[in-house]
Amino acid sequence: MNVEIIVIGDELLIGQVTDTNSGWIARELNHIGWEVTEITTVRDRSREITDALNSSFGRVDVVLMTGGLGPTKDDITKQTLCDYFGGKLVFDESVFANVEAIFRRRKLTMNDSTRNQAYVPNVCTVIQNSVGTAPVMWFERNGKVLVSMPGVPTEMKTVMKEAVISRLREYFQDHSSILHRTCLVKDFTESRLSETLSDFEAQLPACIKLAYLPTPGVIRLRLTARGDEESYLQKIIDDEFFKLRTILGSHLFCGSDTTLAGALGSILTERGETLATAESCTGGNIAHEITRVAGSSVYFKGSVVAYSNEVKARVLNVSSETLSGFGAVSRETVLQMVSGVQRLLSSDCAIATSGIAGPGGGSVEKPVGTVWIAVRYGERSEAECFCFEGDREQVIARATQSALLMLIQLMTK
Amino acid sequence: MNVEIIVIGDELLIGQVTDTNSGWIARELNHIGWEVTEITTVRDRSREITDALNSSFGRVDVVLMTGGLGPTKDDITKQTLCDYFGGKLVFDESVFANVEAIFRRRKLTMNDSTRNQAYVPNVCTVIQNSVGTAPVMWFERNGKVLVSMPGVPTEMKTVMKEAVISRLREYFQDHSSILHRTCLVKDFTESRLSETLSDFEAQLPACIKLAYLPTPGVIRLRLTARGDEESYLQKIIDDEFFKLRTILGSHLFCGSDTTLAGALGSILTERGETLATAESCTGGNIAHEITRVAGSSVYFKGSVVAYSNEVKARVLNVSSETLSGFGAVSRETVLQMVSGVQRLLSSDCAIATSGIAGPGGGSVEKPVGTVWIAVRYGERSEAECFCFEGDREQVIARATQSALLMLIQLMTK
Repeated sequence: MNVEIIVIGDELLIGQVTDTNSGWIARELNHIGWEVTEITTVRDRSREITDALNSSFGRVDVVLMTGGLGPTKDDITKQTLCDYFGGKLVFDESVFANVEAIFRRRKLTMNDSTRNQAYVPNVCTVIQNSVGTAPVMWFERNGKVLVSMPGVPTEMKTVMKEAVISRLREYFQDHSSILHRTCLVKDFTESRLSETLSDFEAQLPACIKLAYLPTPGVIRLRLTARGDEESYLQKIIDDEFFKLRTILGSHLFCGSDTTLAGALGSILTERGETLATAESCTGGNIAHEITRVAGSSVYFKGSVVAYSNEVKARVLNVSSETLSGFGAVSRETVLQMVSGVQRLLSSDCAIATSGIAGPGGGSVEKPVGTVWIAVRYGERSEAECFCFEGDREQVIARATQSALLMLIQLMTK
Repeated sequence: MNVEIIVIGDELLIGQVTDTNSGWIARELNHIGWEVTEITTVRDRSREITDALNSSFGRVDVVLMTGGLGPTKDDITKQTLCDYFGGKLVFDESVFANVEAIFRRRKLTMNDSTRNQAYVPNVCTVIQNSVGTAPVMWFERNGKVLVSMPGVPTEMKTVMKEAVISRLREYFQDHSSILHRTCLVKDFTESRLSETLSDFEAQLPACIKLAYLPTPGVIRLRLTARGDEESYLQKIIDDEFFKLRTILGSHLFCGSDTTLAGALGSILTERGETLATAESCTGGNIAHEITRVAGSSVYFKGSVVAYSNEVKARVLNVSSETLSGFGAVSRETVLQMVSGVQRLLSSDCAIATSGIAGPGGGSVEKPVGTVWIAVRYGERSEAECFCFEGDREQVIARATQSALLMLIQLMTK
């Protein structure tokens, strides 16, 4: 099933807000085997919304729309859709009750513009928005469907998961089962991995697809099985996953769909071990990545962001001879940092970084992008020097991913 | 001048990559007074690219295209554009020399598919891409312009800044000057600020526009002056900015276009003072925000991410009576954390956070989203309890911004 997305909002076209909704929708639909074929971003203007809608309905049967449903005067989507489908706005008691309930919960007083949220076209089916005041509207015409959803990500995601996806499958009588199995693979480039797996791919049953989703340092592999009988699909996806694991051995280091920080977290949880980080150039970003994972408090003890040499020396016990003799960006320094933080926070594993994120601070010998990373597991340490390309933000992001991967490597050797 | 953007790439339509290019382009064009009116995201398919191009050229005179220029077989943009403009691909020595130079610099060996990068349509003007191998192509037809750029953000940004924007202004004879003056305002909602500034807005000269760019906790105000004579514009924009400062007083706490972390950095740099953070629930994200600012090593000493109580006690000196009596998420704990880190890292200012980011760990008394934040400047401390809505990611992001703002408030009182 092909789907198009229309994203509405002036704020997107002046670059004030980045649209992350359509990527999320694409991933979710991908999971049920549906495909997003085009995304159109338009301003809060009736004519532009209508034109986009006409174009999309000329190509596909399902259009998902996000944004343009706030109570302010800029947001004219509701009236536009009402005109487009030839209805009129009517007061809806159920929507009003929902808006009231939300205001009560947030301890806010309603005004006229929030009351307006309760007016909906009489030619749509309202899907109640349990986490926000803007109603979700489902329109049908000639076997085609338009769903208009709020642009606030949590609201859109909630309503998609709770109601829209199942309703779309129902409407288009998509009763097939879809199963996924995702894993993470290290030490491969995408092209070498696809060579390695060419025989495996050739023998896959027709109901199973293999997708490569490369990210820096790691390739995510996803097996998708689609068919009528779930128990049968479960069996063959398990079989194929077992073959994959046999071919890739320890290169397949995580059998679930997660981030590197999540994969590291699983290993730590499984072993009942703990982690600490000592960060200079990554400035807390490794700790941030680790703590983005829900439940990380079980294994993450904490971090010392040692941005100044004084903190490296005083808190992490890096010797002043090392700092003056080899410099802060050196093998010797990161090795002392990683031991220092392991000792200070009494953790089983540790990560340390020191480098030059730029734009200033580079030299011929140590250009911007030079980052020393050390990892430690029990009594074993390893250190490596990287030279990352890109701006400050990218150097920090790449150093973070490399550090997490290095520790996973050391722990799974 | 109205502009449309066409974003090309299968990876965007399966949600594997988020498009940040078009937002960046919109912001840059906004700076010269040009407007992005629509963004279309299509797959790597010739027909879809051509259709999008036809639609866009039906509405505007300038189309900027990103993506679809890699050396792999999926990327068919170059051939599609060549056909669209009625040319053929020819080998271009200057592009080849550029590709060679880049491979030499990266110490890589060229293969056939990279050599293909040097083939370009004979109906376009090549703009050399100094940071990547994909050539930038400038097409003209009937007074309309299409510029095709690589999708790699650094490459696109470099070529836009170095060549494309100036060339577009030249081609469309846009010789007007544009000046901006941006500032940050605190303690206001957008609607109350627009009330406060209604007289100011009414008296603005026609050549000056005022824009409101709200972000959580802070509103960014931008004055834009557009006209022929730069020195005149400079004078009146300075005059109007002076009036703005007079009206808003200390609510206008930063006179430049920056983030909250950047604004805090300016205050610290100006006063020659230093900063440290002690983070529990924000898990290093405050340190990360601070160190995203280039040059932050001058004033940022570091951070202790005290995720476990043991670290709060042992490293930050939070007393065990406080932790057991009031809990980790309490006024008493964050106040001891903020003093503890100030002392440990010998900084002038400090920030501390402790809260429940979720999804687990909440209770009736302290639900998910409860965050205590303390800030300290010299001998003065302040603590406040927030209850943020949203998921784990959002709670962390909002706590981070609130903490930075609280310290700015304390320092500028």
